[in-house]
Amino acid sequence: MRIDALTTFPEMFDSVMNTSMMRIAQEKGLLEFFAHDLRDWTHDRHRTTDDDPYGGGHGLIMKCEPIFEACDELFADADPYIIFLAPTGERFTDQVASELSKKDHLAFVCGHYEGIDERAYTLADRVLSIGDYVLTSGELSSMVVIDAVVRKIDGVLGDSLGPIEESFSGNLLEYPQYTRPASYRGLDVPEVLLSGNQAAIDKWRHEMSIARTATLRPDLLEGAELSAADCDFLQNLEHR
Amino acid sequence: MRIDALTTFPEMFDSVMNTSMMRIAQEKGLLEFFAHDLRDWTHDRHRTTDDDPYGGGHGLIMKCEPIFEACDELFADADPYIIFLAPTGERFTDQVASELSKKDHLAFVCGHYEGIDERAYTLADRVLSIGDYVLTSGELSSMVVIDAVVRKIDGVLGDSLGPIEESFSGNLLEYPQYTRPASYRGLDVPEVLLSGNQAAIDKWRHEMSIARTATLRPDLLEGAELSAADCDFLQNLEHR
Repeated sequence: MRIDALTTFPEMFDSVMNTSMMRIAQEKGLLEFFAHDLRDWTHDRHRTTDDDPYGGGHGLIMKCEPIFEACDELFADADPYIIFLAPTGERFTDQVASELSKKDHLAFVCGHYEGIDERAYTLADRVLSIGDYVLTSGELSSMVVIDAVVRKIDGVLGDSLGPIEESFSGNLLEYPQYTRPASYRGLDVPEVLLSGNQAAIDKWRHEMSIARTATLRPDLLEGAELSAADCDFLQNLEHR
Repeated sequence: MRIDALTTFPEMFDSVMNTSMMRIAQEKGLLEFFAHDLRDWTHDRHRTTDDDPYGGGHGLIMKCEPIFEACDELFADADPYIIFLAPTGERFTDQVASELSKKDHLAFVCGHYEGIDERAYTLADRVLSIGDYVLTSGELSSMVVIDAVVRKIDGVLGDSLGPIEESFSGNLLEYPQYTRPASYRGLDVPEVLLSGNQAAIDKWRHEMSIARTATLRPDLLEGAELSAADCDFLQNLEHR
Protein backbone atom coordinates (compact mmCIF):
# COMPACT_ATOMS: atom_id res chain seq x y z
CA MET A 1 0.00 0.00 0.00
CA ARG A 2 1.07 3.55 -0.72
CA ILE A 3 0.02 6.36 1.61
CA ASP A 4 0.55 10.07 0.93
CA ALA A 5 -0.09 12.83 3.44
CA LEU A 6 -0.57 16.45 2.37
CA THR A 7 0.28 18.66 5.32
CA THR A 8 1.80 21.92 6.51
CA PHE A 9 3.74 20.00 9.19
CA PRO A 10 5.32 17.00 7.38
CA GLU A 11 7.82 16.51 10.23
CA MET A 12 4.95 15.64 12.61
CA PHE A 13 4.74 12.21 10.99
CA ASP A 14 8.42 11.35 11.45
CA SER A 15 8.61 9.66 14.80
CA VAL A 16 5.33 7.75 14.55
CA MET A 17 5.93 6.55 10.99
CA ASN A 18 9.50 5.44 11.79
CA THR A 19 8.78 3.41 14.93
CA SER A 20 7.42 -0.02 15.76
CA MET A 21 4.76 -1.44 13.41
CA MET A 22 4.94 1.44 10.91
CA ARG A 23 8.69 1.00 10.50
CA ILE A 24 8.32 -2.77 10.18
CA ALA A 25 5.56 -2.43 7.55
CA GLN A 26 7.86 -0.22 5.48
CA GLU A 27 10.90 -2.48 5.98
CA LYS A 28 8.83 -5.47 4.84
CA GLY A 29 7.92 -3.54 1.68
CA LEU A 30 4.21 -3.62 2.58
CA LEU A 31 3.89 0.15 3.01
CA GLU A 32 5.31 3.20 1.26
CA PHE A 33 4.70 6.47 3.09
CA PHE A 34 5.29 10.04 1.91
CA ALA A 35 4.53 13.28 3.76
CA HIS A 36 4.34 16.27 1.41
CA ASP A 37 4.70 19.87 2.52
CA LEU A 38 1.79 21.91 1.12
CA ARG A 39 4.08 24.97 1.20
CA ASP A 40 5.78 23.50 -1.87
CA TRP A 41 2.64 24.44 -3.83
CA THR A 42 2.48 28.09 -2.78
CA HIS A 43 3.65 30.97 -4.96
CA ASP A 44 4.35 33.84 -2.59
CA ARG A 45 7.52 34.74 -0.77
CA HIS A 46 6.07 33.72 2.61
CA ARG A 47 4.78 30.37 1.30
CA THR A 48 1.35 31.13 2.72
CA THR A 49 -1.00 28.18 3.16
CA ASP A 50 -3.67 29.91 5.23
CA ASP A 51 -5.62 33.15 5.24
CA ASP A 52 -8.42 34.99 7.06
CA PRO A 53 -11.92 33.54 6.82
CA TYR A 54 -14.44 35.24 4.54
CA GLY A 55 -17.22 36.66 6.69
CA GLY A 56 -14.85 37.35 9.60
CA GLY A 57 -14.02 35.42 12.71
CA HIS A 58 -10.98 34.23 14.63
CA GLY A 59 -8.34 31.92 13.29
CA LEU A 60 -6.93 31.14 9.88
CA ILE A 61 -8.38 28.88 7.21
CA MET A 62 -6.23 26.64 5.02
CA LYS A 63 -6.28 27.85 1.41
CA CYS A 64 -7.65 25.43 -1.16
CA GLU A 65 -5.22 26.29 -3.98
CA PRO A 66 -2.09 24.48 -2.62
CA ILE A 67 -4.21 21.39 -1.96
CA PHE A 68 -5.66 21.32 -5.51
CA GLU A 69 -2.24 21.96 -7.06
CA ALA A 70 -0.53 19.32 -4.92
CA CYS A 71 -3.11 16.74 -5.97
CA ASP A 72 -2.70 17.74 -9.63
CA GLU A 73 1.03 17.22 -9.51
CA LEU A 74 1.33 14.25 -7.15
CA PHE A 75 -1.56 12.27 -8.54
CA ALA A 76 -1.31 13.08 -12.24
CA ASP A 77 -0.73 9.38 -12.98
CA ALA A 78 -2.30 7.93 -9.86
CA ASP A 79 -5.78 7.56 -8.48
CA PRO A 80 -5.50 7.50 -4.70
CA TYR A 81 -8.51 7.25 -2.44
CA ILE A 82 -8.49 10.74 -0.92
CA ILE A 83 -9.46 11.08 2.73
CA PHE A 84 -10.15 14.23 4.75
CA LEU A 85 -10.51 14.17 8.53
CA ALA A 86 -13.18 16.51 9.88
CA PRO A 87 -15.74 16.65 12.71
CA THR A 88 -18.42 16.61 10.01
CA GLY A 89 -17.17 13.29 8.67
CA GLU A 90 -18.56 9.80 8.84
CA ARG A 91 -17.57 8.07 12.07
CA PHE A 92 -14.33 6.08 11.64
CA THR A 93 -14.74 2.50 12.91
CA ASP A 94 -12.90 -0.79 12.73
CA GLN A 95 -15.12 -1.78 9.79
CA VAL A 96 -14.03 1.32 7.85
CA ALA A 97 -10.40 0.46 8.69
CA SER A 98 -10.88 -3.04 7.22
CA GLU A 99 -12.37 -1.56 4.08
CA LEU A 100 -9.53 0.96 3.66
CA SER A 101 -6.90 -1.76 4.23
CA LYS A 102 -7.96 -3.29 0.88
CA LYS A 103 -7.04 -0.14 -1.10
CA ASP A 104 -3.73 0.19 -2.98
CA HIS A 105 -3.25 3.89 -2.44
CA LEU A 106 -4.60 6.28 0.17
CA ALA A 107 -4.00 10.03 0.44
CA PHE A 108 -4.74 12.12 3.54
CA VAL A 109 -5.31 15.86 3.46
CA CYS A 110 -4.48 17.20 6.92
CA GLY A 111 -6.10 20.35 8.24
CA HIS A 112 -4.47 22.23 11.07
CA TYR A 113 -5.95 24.74 13.53
CA GLU A 114 -9.18 26.20 12.19
CA GLY A 115 -9.94 24.00 9.23
CA ILE A 116 -9.80 23.94 5.47
CA ASP A 117 -11.51 26.02 2.79
CA GLU A 118 -14.71 24.10 2.09
CA ARG A 119 -14.02 23.88 -1.64
CA ALA A 120 -11.08 21.53 -1.07
CA TYR A 121 -13.55 18.89 0.10
CA THR A 122 -14.68 18.43 -3.52
CA LEU A 123 -11.45 16.39 -3.86
CA ALA A 124 -12.48 13.97 -1.10
CA ASP A 125 -13.47 10.38 -1.73
CA ARG A 126 -14.33 10.13 1.94
CA VAL A 127 -14.57 12.44 4.94
CA LEU A 128 -14.00 10.70 8.27
CA SER A 129 -14.19 11.70 11.93
CA ILE A 130 -12.20 9.77 14.54
CA GLY A 131 -14.40 11.00 17.42
CA ASP A 132 -16.40 13.82 18.98
CA TYR A 133 -13.53 16.01 20.06
CA VAL A 134 -11.66 18.90 18.49
CA LEU A 135 -8.00 18.40 17.56
CA THR A 136 -5.55 21.07 16.50
CA SER A 137 -3.70 18.59 14.37
CA GLY A 138 -5.27 16.77 11.43
CA GLU A 139 -1.89 15.05 11.18
CA LEU A 140 -2.65 13.23 14.43
CA SER A 141 -6.11 12.07 13.34
CA SER A 142 -4.64 10.92 10.01
CA MET A 143 -2.03 8.88 11.89
CA VAL A 144 -4.79 7.25 13.95
CA VAL A 145 -6.53 6.13 10.75
CA ILE A 146 -3.21 5.04 9.23
CA ASP A 147 -2.35 2.93 12.33
CA ALA A 148 -5.77 1.23 12.37
CA VAL A 149 -5.53 0.52 8.61
CA VAL A 150 -1.88 -0.56 8.34
CA ARG A 151 -2.21 -3.16 11.13
CA LYS A 152 -4.89 -4.87 9.01
CA ILE A 153 -2.73 -5.20 5.89
CA ASP A 154 -1.90 -8.87 5.36
CA GLY A 155 1.55 -9.69 6.70
CA VAL A 156 2.14 -6.53 8.75
CA LEU A 157 1.44 -7.96 12.20
CA GLY A 158 1.72 -11.59 11.13
CA ASP A 159 1.30 -14.01 14.01
CA SER A 160 1.36 -11.30 16.64
CA LEU A 161 -2.22 -10.49 15.72
CA GLY A 162 -4.17 -11.69 18.73
CA PRO A 163 -7.49 -11.53 20.52
CA ILE A 164 -7.59 -7.76 20.91
CA GLU A 165 -8.18 -7.79 17.18
CA GLU A 166 -11.59 -9.24 17.93
CA SER A 167 -12.57 -6.24 20.08
CA PHE A 168 -14.85 -4.67 17.56
CA SER A 169 -15.06 -7.15 14.68
CA GLY A 170 -17.31 -9.40 16.78
CA ASN A 171 -18.91 -6.39 18.48
CA LEU A 172 -17.60 -7.62 21.83
CA LEU A 173 -14.93 -5.94 23.96
CA GLU A 174 -11.82 -7.99 24.64
CA TYR A 175 -11.50 -10.10 27.79
CA PRO A 176 -8.95 -9.20 30.50
CA GLN A 177 -5.39 -10.35 29.85
CA TYR A 178 -2.70 -11.31 32.35
CA THR A 179 0.96 -12.26 32.21
CA ARG A 180 3.57 -13.24 34.81
CA PRO A 181 3.85 -13.11 37.81
CA ALA A 182 0.73 -15.00 38.94
CA SER A 183 0.59 -12.88 42.07
CA TYR A 184 1.80 -9.28 42.44
CA ARG A 185 1.17 -6.85 45.28
CA GLY A 186 -1.77 -8.93 46.43
CA LEU A 187 -3.35 -8.98 42.97
CA ASP A 188 -3.83 -12.50 41.63
CA VAL A 189 -4.35 -13.83 38.13
CA PRO A 190 -7.80 -15.54 37.94
CA GLU A 191 -7.32 -19.22 38.80
CA VAL A 192 -8.96 -20.55 35.66
CA LEU A 193 -6.17 -19.04 33.52
CA LEU A 194 -3.59 -21.11 35.42
CA SER A 195 -5.65 -24.31 35.24
CA GLY A 196 -4.41 -25.58 31.90
CA ASN A 197 -8.01 -26.48 31.05
CA GLN A 198 -8.32 -24.77 27.66
CA ALA A 199 -12.07 -25.34 27.32
CA ALA A 200 -12.67 -23.68 30.70
CA ILE A 201 -10.28 -20.84 29.77
CA ASP A 202 -12.04 -20.23 26.45
CA LYS A 203 -15.44 -20.25 28.14
CA TRP A 204 -14.27 -17.82 30.86
CA ARG A 205 -12.76 -15.46 28.29
CA HIS A 206 -15.85 -15.49 26.12
CA GLU A 207 -18.12 -14.85 29.09
CA MET A 208 -15.87 -12.03 30.34
CA SER A 209 -16.12 -10.42 26.89
CA ILE A 210 -19.90 -10.61 27.00
CA ALA A 211 -20.09 -9.39 30.60
CA ARG A 212 -17.77 -6.43 29.95
CA THR A 213 -19.58 -5.42 26.81
CA ALA A 214 -22.95 -5.63 28.59
CA THR A 215 -21.65 -3.47 31.44
CA LEU A 216 -19.44 -0.99 29.61
CA ARG A 217 -20.80 -0.80 26.06
CA PRO A 218 -24.35 -2.19 25.88
CA ASP A 219 -24.75 -0.33 22.55
CA LEU A 220 -22.24 -2.71 20.93
CA LEU A 221 -24.11 -5.82 22.08
CA GLU A 222 -27.01 -5.10 19.74
CA GLY A 223 -24.76 -5.88 16.78
CA ALA A 224 -23.06 -8.93 18.34
CA GLU A 225 -23.72 -12.48 17.19
CA LEU A 226 -24.69 -14.37 20.33
CA SER A 227 -25.43 -18.09 20.70
CA ALA A 228 -28.33 -19.43 22.76
CA ALA A 229 -25.83 -20.19 25.56
CA ASP A 230 -24.54 -16.59 25.37
CA CYS A 231 -28.07 -15.26 25.73
CA ASP A 232 -28.67 -17.47 28.79
CA PHE A 233 -25.42 -16.22 30.34
CA LEU A 234 -26.45 -12.63 29.64
CA GLN A 235 -29.88 -13.11 31.20
CA ASN A 236 -28.39 -14.63 34.35
CA LEU A 237 -25.97 -11.69 34.49
CA GLU A 238 -28.82 -9.20 34.36
CA HIS A 239 -30.73 -10.98 37.12
CA ARG A 240 -27.80 -11.06 39.49
CA MET B 1 0.12 21.59 33.35
CA ARG B 2 2.49 18.68 33.62
CA ILE B 3 1.98 15.57 31.50
CA ASP B 4 3.92 12.31 31.87
CA ALA B 5 3.71 9.39 29.48
CA LEU B 6 4.80 5.87 30.48
CA THR B 7 5.64 3.99 27.32
CA THR B 8 7.88 1.41 25.69
CA PHE B 9 8.34 3.78 22.71
CA PRO B 10 9.14 7.21 24.22
CA GLU B 11 10.58 8.41 20.89
CA MET B 12 7.13 8.13 19.28
CA PHE B 13 6.12 11.34 21.03
CA ASP B 14 9.06 13.41 19.78
CA SER B 15 7.85 14.92 16.54
CA VAL B 16 4.27 15.56 17.63
CA MET B 17 5.23 17.05 21.01
CA ASN B 18 7.91 19.30 19.45
CA THR B 19 5.81 20.82 16.66
CA SER B 20 3.18 23.51 16.32
CA MET B 21 0.80 24.02 19.26
CA MET B 22 2.55 21.49 21.53
CA ARG B 23 5.90 23.23 21.08
CA ILE B 24 4.32 26.65 21.64
CA ALA B 25 2.54 25.48 24.81
CA GLN B 26 5.90 24.31 26.20
CA GLU B 27 7.73 27.46 25.10
CA LYS B 28 5.09 29.58 26.81
CA GLY B 29 5.67 27.59 30.01
CA LEU B 30 2.07 26.34 30.02
CA LEU B 31 3.00 22.68 29.50
CA GLU B 32 5.76 20.39 30.74
CA PHE B 33 5.92 17.03 28.98
CA PHE B 34 7.99 13.95 29.84
CA ALA B 35 7.99 10.58 28.08
CA HIS B 36 9.43 7.81 30.29
CA ASP B 37 10.74 4.50 28.96
CA LEU B 38 9.13 1.65 30.93
CA ARG B 39 12.26 -0.41 30.20
CA ASP B 40 13.99 1.70 32.85
CA TRP B 41 11.94 -0.19 35.45
CA THR B 42 12.81 -3.72 34.31
CA HIS B 43 15.40 -5.90 36.05
CA ASP B 44 16.47 -8.46 33.45
CA ARG B 45 19.25 -8.25 30.92
CA HIS B 46 16.80 -7.95 28.02
CA ARG B 47 14.76 -5.23 29.73
CA THR B 48 11.58 -7.20 29.09
CA THR B 49 8.32 -5.27 29.33
CA ASP B 50 6.01 -7.93 27.89
CA ASP B 51 5.38 -11.64 28.21
CA ASP B 52 3.05 -14.45 27.02
CA PRO B 53 -0.59 -14.27 28.13
CA TYR B 54 -1.74 -16.64 30.87
CA GLY B 55 -4.25 -19.05 29.39
CA GLY B 56 -2.56 -19.00 25.97
CA GLY B 57 -3.19 -17.04 22.81
CA HIS B 58 -1.31 -14.95 20.28
CA GLY B 59 0.59 -11.81 21.08
CA LEU B 60 2.40 -10.44 24.08
CA ILE B 61 0.91 -8.70 27.10
CA MET B 62 2.60 -5.76 28.82
CA LYS B 63 3.80 -6.74 32.29
CA CYS B 64 2.31 -4.83 35.21
CA GLU B 65 5.48 -4.66 37.34
CA PRO B 66 7.37 -1.95 35.38
CA ILE B 67 4.20 0.17 35.36
CA PHE B 68 3.70 -0.10 39.13
CA GLU B 69 7.38 0.56 39.82
CA ALA B 70 7.52 3.54 37.44
CA CYS B 71 4.51 5.11 39.18
CA ASP B 72 6.09 4.46 42.60
CA GLU B 73 9.27 6.25 41.63
CA LEU B 74 7.95 9.03 39.39
CA PHE B 75 4.95 9.93 41.49
CA ALA B 76 6.34 9.42 45.00
CA ASP B 77 5.73 13.11 45.73
CA ALA B 78 3.08 13.80 43.12
CA ASP B 79 -0.52 12.87 42.61
CA PRO B 80 -1.17 12.85 38.87
CA TYR B 81 -4.52 11.94 37.39
CA ILE B 82 -3.61 8.61 35.76
CA ILE B 83 -5.23 7.79 32.43
CA PHE B 84 -5.22 4.50 30.49
CA LEU B 85 -6.47 4.27 26.91
CA ALA B 86 -8.39 1.07 26.10
CA PRO B 87 -11.33 -0.07 23.96
CA THR B 88 -13.15 -0.85 27.22
CA GLY B 89 -12.86 2.76 28.36
CA GLU B 90 -15.37 5.54 28.65
CA ARG B 91 -15.82 7.37 25.37
CA PHE B 92 -13.47 10.36 25.10
CA THR B 93 -15.38 13.52 24.12
CA ASP B 94 -14.82 17.25 24.01
CA GLN B 95 -16.50 17.53 27.43
CA VAL B 96 -13.98 15.09 28.92
CA ALA B 97 -11.19 17.14 27.30
CA SER B 98 -12.49 20.30 28.98
CA GLU B 99 -12.61 18.54 32.31
CA LEU B 100 -9.05 17.19 31.96
CA SER B 101 -7.74 20.62 30.91
CA LYS B 102 -8.47 21.85 34.47
CA LYS B 103 -6.07 19.30 36.05
CA ASP B 104 -2.51 20.23 37.09
CA HIS B 105 -0.92 16.91 36.31
CA LEU B 106 -1.90 14.08 33.97
CA ALA B 107 -0.12 10.77 33.41
CA PHE B 108 -0.78 8.43 30.49
CA VAL B 109 0.03 4.72 30.56
CA CYS B 110 0.44 3.62 26.94
CA GLY B 111 -0.26 0.05 25.90
CA HIS B 112 1.24 -1.27 22.70
CA TYR B 113 0.19 -4.24 20.53
CA GLU B 114 -1.91 -6.69 22.55
CA GLY B 115 -2.67 -4.75 25.70
CA ILE B 116 -1.70 -4.49 29.32
CA ASP B 117 -1.91 -6.91 32.26
CA GLU B 118 -5.30 -6.20 33.75
CA ARG B 119 -3.89 -5.60 37.22
CA ALA B 120 -2.17 -2.39 36.07
CA TYR B 121 -5.61 -0.84 35.62
CA THR B 122 -5.96 -0.64 39.40
CA LEU B 123 -3.66 2.41 39.07
CA ALA B 124 -6.08 4.20 36.73
CA ASP B 125 -8.09 7.24 37.73
CA ARG B 126 -9.80 7.02 34.37
CA VAL B 127 -9.91 4.63 31.41
CA LEU B 128 -10.77 6.30 28.11
CA SER B 129 -11.46 5.13 24.56
CA ILE B 130 -10.92 7.53 21.65
CA GLY B 131 -13.16 5.50 19.31
CA ASP B 132 -14.36 2.10 18.13
CA TYR B 133 -11.23 0.99 16.32
CA VAL B 134 -8.16 -1.00 17.30
CA LEU B 135 -4.81 0.79 17.36
CA THR B 136 -1.40 -0.79 17.70
CA SER B 137 -0.10 2.26 19.45
CA GLY B 138 -1.49 3.55 22.74
CA GLU B 139 1.05 6.34 22.29
CA LEU B 140 -1.04 7.65 19.40
CA SER B 141 -4.32 7.56 21.30
CA SER B 142 -2.62 9.29 24.24
CA MET B 143 -1.39 12.04 21.89
CA VAL B 144 -4.94 12.51 20.61
CA VAL B 145 -6.18 13.09 24.16
CA ILE B 146 -3.19 15.34 24.91
CA ASP B 147 -3.86 17.47 21.79
CA ALA B 148 -7.56 17.87 22.62
CA VAL B 149 -6.73 18.77 26.24
CA VAL B 150 -3.73 21.09 25.70
CA ARG B 151 -5.59 23.27 23.19
CA LYS B 152 -8.11 24.03 25.93
CA ILE B 153 -5.55 25.23 28.47
CA ASP B 154 -5.97 28.98 28.94
CA GLY B 155 -3.44 30.90 26.88
CA VAL B 156 -2.26 28.07 24.62
CA LEU B 157 -4.22 29.01 21.50
CA GLY B 158 -4.98 32.55 22.63
CA ASP B 159 -6.84 34.56 20.04
CA SER B 160 -6.50 31.94 17.34
CA LEU B 161 -9.24 29.96 19.06
CA GLY B 162 -12.12 30.26 16.65
CA PRO B 163 -15.48 28.87 15.68
CA ILE B 164 -14.35 25.28 15.13
CA GLU B 165 -14.01 25.26 18.91
CA GLU B 166 -17.79 25.39 19.05
CA SER B 167 -18.13 22.16 17.06
CA PHE B 168 -19.07 19.99 19.98
CA SER B 169 -19.42 22.31 22.93
CA GLY B 170 -22.74 23.57 21.53
CA ASN B 171 -23.55 20.11 20.10
CA LEU B 172 -23.57 21.59 16.59
CA LEU B 173 -21.07 20.87 13.83
CA GLU B 174 -19.13 23.85 12.55
CA TYR B 175 -20.28 25.82 9.51
CA PRO B 176 -18.29 25.76 6.23
CA GLN B 177 -15.32 28.11 6.10
CA TYR B 178 -13.78 29.86 3.08
CA THR B 179 -10.78 32.02 2.39
CA ARG B 180 -9.35 33.75 -0.69
CA PRO B 181 -9.76 33.61 -3.64
CA ALA B 182 -13.51 34.25 -3.95
CA SER B 183 -13.62 32.08 -7.05
CA TYR B 184 -11.36 29.13 -7.87
CA ARG B 185 -11.74 26.52 -10.59
CA GLY B 186 -15.42 27.37 -10.94
CA LEU B 187 -16.05 27.03 -7.21
CA ASP B 188 -17.41 30.21 -5.62
CA VAL B 189 -17.53 31.40 -2.03
CA PRO B 190 -21.20 31.82 -0.97
CA GLU B 191 -22.24 35.41 -1.73
CA VAL B 192 -23.46 36.20 1.76
CA LEU B 193 -19.90 35.84 3.12
CA LEU B 194 -18.73 38.60 0.76
CA SER B 195 -21.70 40.88 1.57
CA GLY B 196 -20.21 42.64 4.59
CA ASN B 197 -23.59 42.25 6.30
CA GLN B 198 -22.48 40.67 9.57
CA ALA B 199 -26.01 39.91 10.80
CA ALA B 200 -26.76 38.01 7.59
CA ILE B 201 -23.39 36.22 7.79
CA ASP B 202 -23.99 35.16 11.40
CA LYS B 203 -27.50 33.94 10.55
CA TRP B 204 -26.23 31.95 7.53
CA ARG B 205 -23.43 30.38 9.57
CA HIS B 206 -25.73 29.40 12.40
CA GLU B 207 -28.27 27.90 9.99
CA MET B 208 -25.54 26.00 8.13
CA SER B 209 -24.39 24.54 11.46
CA ILE B 210 -27.91 23.38 12.25
CA ALA B 211 -28.51 22.02 8.74
CA ARG B 212 -25.21 20.11 8.69
CA THR B 213 -25.78 18.65 12.12
CA ALA B 214 -29.32 17.59 11.18
CA THR B 215 -28.05 15.92 8.01
CA LEU B 216 -24.76 14.42 9.16
CA ARG B 217 -25.10 13.91 12.93
CA PRO B 218 -28.76 13.98 13.99
CA ASP B 219 -27.70 12.23 17.22
CA LEU B 220 -25.86 15.40 18.33
CA LEU B 221 -28.91 17.63 17.79
CA GLU B 222 -30.75 16.04 20.69
CA GLY B 223 -28.27 17.66 23.09
CA ALA B 224 -28.16 21.05 21.33
CA GLU B 225 -29.72 24.20 22.75
CA LEU B 226 -32.00 25.50 20.03
CA SER B 227 -34.03 28.70 20.03
CA ALA B 228 -37.63 28.86 18.76
CA ALA B 229 -36.28 30.33 15.50
CA ASP B 230 -33.81 27.43 15.22
CA CYS B 231 -36.64 24.93 15.62
CA ASP B 232 -38.68 26.68 12.91
CA PHE B 233 -35.66 26.59 10.58
CA LEU B 234 -35.17 22.90 11.32
CA GLN B 235 -38.81 22.07 10.63
CA ASN B 236 -38.73 23.91 7.31
CA LEU B 237 -35.55 22.01 6.47
CA GLU B 238 -37.25 18.69 7.12
CA HIS B 239 -40.23 19.57 4.97
CA ARG B 240 -38.15 20.61 2.00
